[in-house]
Amino acid sequence: MLKKRVYLILLLCCLLFVTLAAEEGMFPLNQLHLLDLTAKGLEIDPQTIFNEQAISLSDAIVNIGGCTGSFVSADGLILTNHHCVFRAIREASTVENDYLRDGFLAANRSDEKEAKGYTVRITESYQDVSREILSALNDVSELAERHKIIERKRKEIVARAEEENPGKRAEVAEMFTGESYLLFIYTHIKDVRMVYVPPRSIGEFGGEFDNWEWPRHTGDFAFMRAYVAPDGSPADYSEENIPFRPKKFLKIEPRGVNEGDFVFILGYPARTYRHQTSHYMAFEQKLRMPLVVDWYQWQINLMESMGQEDPGIALKFSSRIKGLANTEKNFRGKLQGLQRLNLVENKRMEEARIQEFVKKDKKLRRTYGDVLENIARLFDEQRNVFYKESCLGYLLSSVNLFNLANTIYKAAIEREKDDLERESAFMERNFAMTRNRLFMGLANYDQKLDQYILHEIINRVNQLSEEKRPESFQRLFGPAEDKDGLELIITRAYTSSNLHDPKFVERALEMSLAEIEALNDPFIRWVAELQPEIEQLDELKDQRNGALNKYSAQWAEVKKLFFKKHFIPDANRTFRLTYGYIEGYSPADAIYKKPITTLRGVLEKTSPDPPFDTPQKIMDLYHQKDFGPFRCEQVDDLPVGILYSTDTSGGNSGSPVLNANGDIVGLNFDRTFEATINDFAWSHQYSRSIGVDIRYVLWVTQKFAGADYLLQEMDIAEK
Amino acid sequence: MLKKRVYLILLLCCLLFVTLAAEEGMFPLNQLHLLDLTAKGLEIDPQTIFNEQAISLSDAIVNIGGCTGSFVSADGLILTNHHCVFRAIREASTVENDYLRDGFLAANRSDEKEAKGYTVRITESYQDVSREILSALNDVSELAERHKIIERKRKEIVARAEEENPGKRAEVAEMFTGESYLLFIYTHIKDVRMVYVPPRSIGEFGGEFDNWEWPRHTGDFAFMRAYVAPDGSPADYSEENIPFRPKKFLKIEPRGVNEGDFVFILGYPARTYRHQTSHYMAFEQKLRMPLVVDWYQWQINLMESMGQEDPGIALKFSSRIKGLANTEKNFRGKLQGLQRLNLVENKRMEEARIQEFVKKDKKLRRTYGDVLENIARLFDEQRNVFYKESCLGYLLSSVNLFNLANTIYKAAIEREKDDLERESAFMERNFAMTRNRLFMGLANYDQKLDQYILHEIINRVNQLSEEKRPESFQRLFGPAEDKDGLELIITRAYTSSNLHDPKFVERALEMSLAEIEALNDPFIRWVAELQPEIEQLDELKDQRNGALNKYSAQWAEVKKLFFKKHFIPDANRTFRLTYGYIEGYSPADAIYKKPITTLRGVLEKTSPDPPFDTPQKIMDLYHQKDFGPFRCEQVDDLPVGILYSTDTSGGNSGSPVLNANGDIVGLNFDRTFEATINDFAWSHQYSRSIGVDIRYVLWVTQKFAGADYLLQEMDIAEK
Repeated sequence: MLKKRVYLILLLCCLLFVTLAAEEGMFPLNQLHLLDLTAKGLEIDPQTIFNEQAISLSDAIVNIGGCTGSFVSADGLILTNHHCVFRAIREASTVENDYLRDGFLAANRSDEKEAKGYTVRITESYQDVSREILSALNDVSELAERHKIIERKRKEIVARAEEENPGKRAEVAEMFTGESYLLFIYTHIKDVRMVYVPPRSIGEFGGEFDNWEWPRHTGDFAFMRAYVAPDGSPADYSEENIPFRPKKFLKIEPRGVNEGDFVFILGYPARTYRHQTSHYMAFEQKLRMPLVVDWYQWQINLMESMGQEDPGIALKFSSRIKGLANTEKNFRGKLQGLQRLNLVENKRMEEARIQEFVKKDKKLRRTYGDVLENIARLFDEQRNVFYKESCLGYLLSSVNLFNLANTIYKAAIEREKDDLERESAFMERNFAMTRNRLFMGLANYDQKLDQYILHEIINRVNQLSEEKRPESFQRLFGPAEDKDGLELIITRAYTSSNLHDPKFVERALEMSLAEIEALNDPFIRWVAELQPEIEQLDELKDQRNGALNKYSAQWAEVKKLFFKKHFIPDANRTFRLTYGYIEGYSPADAIYKKPITTLRGVLEKTSPDPPFDTPQKIMDLYHQKDFGPFRCEQVDDLPVGILYSTDTSGGNSGSPVLNANGDIVGLNFDRTFEATINDFAWSHQYSRSIGVDIRYVLWVTQKFAGADYLLQEMDIAEK
Repeated sequence: MLKKRVYLILLLCCLLFVTLAAEEGMFPLNQLHLLDLTAKGLEIDPQTIFNEQAISLSDAIVNIGGCTGSFVSADGLILTNHHCVFRAIREASTVENDYLRDGFLAANRSDEKEAKGYTVRITESYQDVSREILSALNDVSELAERHKIIERKRKEIVARAEEENPGKRAEVAEMFTGESYLLFIYTHIKDVRMVYVPPRSIGEFGGEFDNWEWPRHTGDFAFMRAYVAPDGSPADYSEENIPFRPKKFLKIEPRGVNEGDFVFILGYPARTYRHQTSHYMAFEQKLRMPLVVDWYQWQINLMESMGQEDPGIALKFSSRIKGLANTEKNFRGKLQGLQRLNLVENKRMEEARIQEFVKKDKKLRRTYGDVLENIARLFDEQRNVFYKESCLGYLLSSVNLFNLANTIYKAAIEREKDDLERESAFMERNFAMTRNRLFMGLANYDQKLDQYILHEIINRVNQLSEEKRPESFQRLFGPAEDKDGLELIITRAYTSSNLHDPKFVERALEMSLAEIEALNDPFIRWVAELQPEIEQLDELKDQRNGALNKYSAQWAEVKKLFFKKHFIPDANRTFRLTYGYIEGYSPADAIYKKPITTLRGVLEKTSPDPPFDTPQKIMDLYHQKDFGPFRCEQVDDLPVGILYSTDTSGGNSGSPVLNANGDIVGLNFDRTFEATINDFAWSHQYSRSIGVDIRYVLWVTQKFAGADYLLQEMDIAEK
């Protein structure tokens, strides 16, 4: 009897999963016709999602703080993630008013606080510019030149577009390497304000510990508002400004979702690499990612042990540790995924089949016969210089004073060039951001840490065999054997350099190369001495990229011929749609994770200390079972987090999760550990994304924060 | 449609769990009549499990290496855990023949390897001696005396029993504190041999990392054999010896189990504390366990960071780290469980209800009115001396040279006393074991580590407020402020002491007190100086234990009157039965863990390095799907681990998991993290035990090791 029941359950589970089937793909909105969304579960006309001729749901989607957000009221109210506006909350906080700790609720419109440095980007239009770019390559056979010409062409098109569209920003995105390019025109709204953000103990509940994990219990949401000048044009923050009236805003579904429901996501997913060959994947799996994991882990350990002795230091390092840990865990997830999916081997077998196909056809063989071989050779070349590139790269990025010296030095050199000839970071339109980032790094500068890191990089280089080492290192830092000498060189450099002084850096950023050289700063001198080797490596890289650009395009052509089908381009921070279902998964043998978490789970995780502390009021409301209309029948509790089988990547943070009617049922903010592999491959078995349930958003806003007026603005009456 | 299906599944899941209901209790075998095992699912006569008048299944159960084991053939073949005979495997290994790494299979009987230092203990009989012990207390009102008298009485009974039963060992176990005592007579077989042990990569797969975790994929099993002299009497290892013929051996069920099946376990669970009051639990939760976790964690961190620099050191510390980590994780689990179950508060409320009940009845009030108050007072007293006791305790146990000095010093003192008057460790019957343990510790002695630990203990003591500190510390190690002075004292002590020399220790262990004092060893001198304070604390402890002994017995009486029911005594390493079902559980919101793991899961976890490396042959067999008759339909794979809702504790390692027919379907070896709370309370919600599936045991033995002859000996023909 018992056994029968178990079988019945297993059987039903199978049936359930057979009927659901999410699909790989972050679809560009102009390719939605490739998808029969209605058959998948969509109950509105797909044209209402995206329509070049009319206002559609997609017009409600914005880019904010590198994340996605969406308009949720006619008055420019924006819903996005807490972690996407974290910096704004911190900037607005003071010792008396710690909005990170306590949250912030504007009493009324005039009480809304400026989100310094934040902009809201709205996609106005896009246009295919592939022909213009590719025609510039017509007569270029020199592969090294190709890359440079494409980059130059992209910059020209952007400059022209920005001239033609005053006040807008333009961007040319590469959709398929060496094959297709889109020009996007964006409006940037520059006055963004905080309306309601929950306290960190809700918005960041679980912190680093729960990052990339499911089950999740984070109320990772925030309400912001976009403001424009009285004439409707983007303007800097001013009291005169008025709320922006978006073309479109999204409706909220306060009844949320149930297990099995169809959902889709609109947003700006960051880069994915699924169309790359086995050679790319092998390079990542064997060489690059293990090195990054190891190097980041070393730095995290160092900072944590330094922090253990001094809480001030711990605080200072916290956001740097957070950043490193986020990538480190992501890469560990990817490495696990690469192994589990046996991705390199599977790609290799696929490539072998395609090669067979090419060989059989004389014409194909002539055109494409050696494409894969050429790609393989490029990765061999990349492997040869990998340690040199990495060591120099980390020297200039992980060591603060090297980073400062390098930016100052480069700024002086690039400033001499035409704007369009400069490296992107040093172009007029981008230099303010570059400066900004530099000073943010300097604000958390710690000499002891910086010295340790420099020392470790040199040690690691010294442990490499001769041919792997950057040649400049011994010249700069002496022979590997002379440990005392090295110690002395480093100590002297840190004692004599002024790069730790923001005022000095500010001045130096304006200087000419001759003036900079006259400063005689040891780090700037080192950077100058490194230049020949860096330039040589950069030149090789340009050559590889130019070649890769051509061969990748060719390989894509072959694949299309072989598979006889269209491909969805890799994600590249442009606007995409992905769909799936509210569904659990099995991350490992004998474990099943359900797709909806509850407030009970918040209390289960709660402990006195961050990141698992919970406001007393939340606990009281839980014990009173005061869930209002937001209780979920299916889980018999207040829902908190939701899990779904959409195809997302970084950059999808803050994306609205929409139901079959196109109404918001959740707010995307993360992926599962197993889904970090999404960047290389998607698997219905365990690619899952994580959102905060809209019912939790509304419940916290209403019952915890008492912001009924926001629910009214979003047209949600207590039912 | 979809929604309906989900509801149906949820409904069926509920039904399933309602029909199953395991029960708290490690039942002493003479109390099986309290249980209707047939109604629970047992399909054989309960009398066949245990019967004082006849041979029963229980006669096949033995104690081996502190664990449980069972006879599985007429020729003394024993099945137990790999981790229970780990030490024997290591001892038998050489550089050429590394049985830990490669496993060991005896080609035939004469090839079986001695398991040095191992004995097999068989329970011959038991007898209630409560009256004899308690009558000795008749005229004793002095509470401090009670404890001493009981201990003395237990030793006397043991001595008498061993005299009456030559060649046997006796033990008096306290079943209910101050209330009931059983005398057990045991046979100790002294010639034990290794028959088949899998390689560590199977038997220890997952190592520390998976310890206390489910899902589990460890093949934690080993086959041993008991040998006796040709006349059948226990004898030391000799080639003349012959396999022991047990009264009873267990049958193996090669078809294993399915989800939902009834199972039971026979074994020797270690101490549990469920009958203790809220005062005990609060003391553990607030004071003792957090201190242990913190202190062990500190030591583990230290050893790990020392090991990082030197692989030799890492190896040396590995088993010490393993021991500490095992307890540390167990305690963390318990602390989580105490919080989740809100145990202290619930106990308090129960106690308040019992107090109400007592107050209402005049007679009860007179006898029991202040029992709980008295127990509370005893824990207050214990709290007062807690830091003193702990600091002195850790000084003498965590610091190797202090431990050696203390044992040498105590040995000299105790040797002067009558055997029965001595502390248990120094009685003739136990001293060999005490010595043994001492030299095992010395074998892994590391001066640097020892110095660090001593230094840290003194630092920690110095951070305590005056009234918490052991008084002797400042006298021995100088004032807290004088850090240089302390450094010097410690360095000098380690330089001048000879306690690191095994030969010196060997000699010192035989010396009189006067001879020892003449050695002028700094650690022995320190131990001597600590004695007055230690003795004073010991005296207080005896007083508390004596009082607790009386009050606990009284509190048990009240509880019986209040609840009007029998209680199962706390586990105490005596023979017990527990039953349950093969069933999964939900350890946290939105997670469900299934009860059977598979070989697929082994491969999923496999990585190149221990503890997750897997022999190539296992992987080949998996890919060939060569599961023989051991494949499990339900999971469509080879089953590896099983999970069940029995009530177990430490000491149940190696216990056979028996099905409704009393045949072996698995081998118990661990509990889940959530079930570490079992020692304080049992919860059907998440108290689960972990075993290796007998099908995995048989498959590894046959397909991997090729030991068909063992399967034949156990009467298993390929079906």
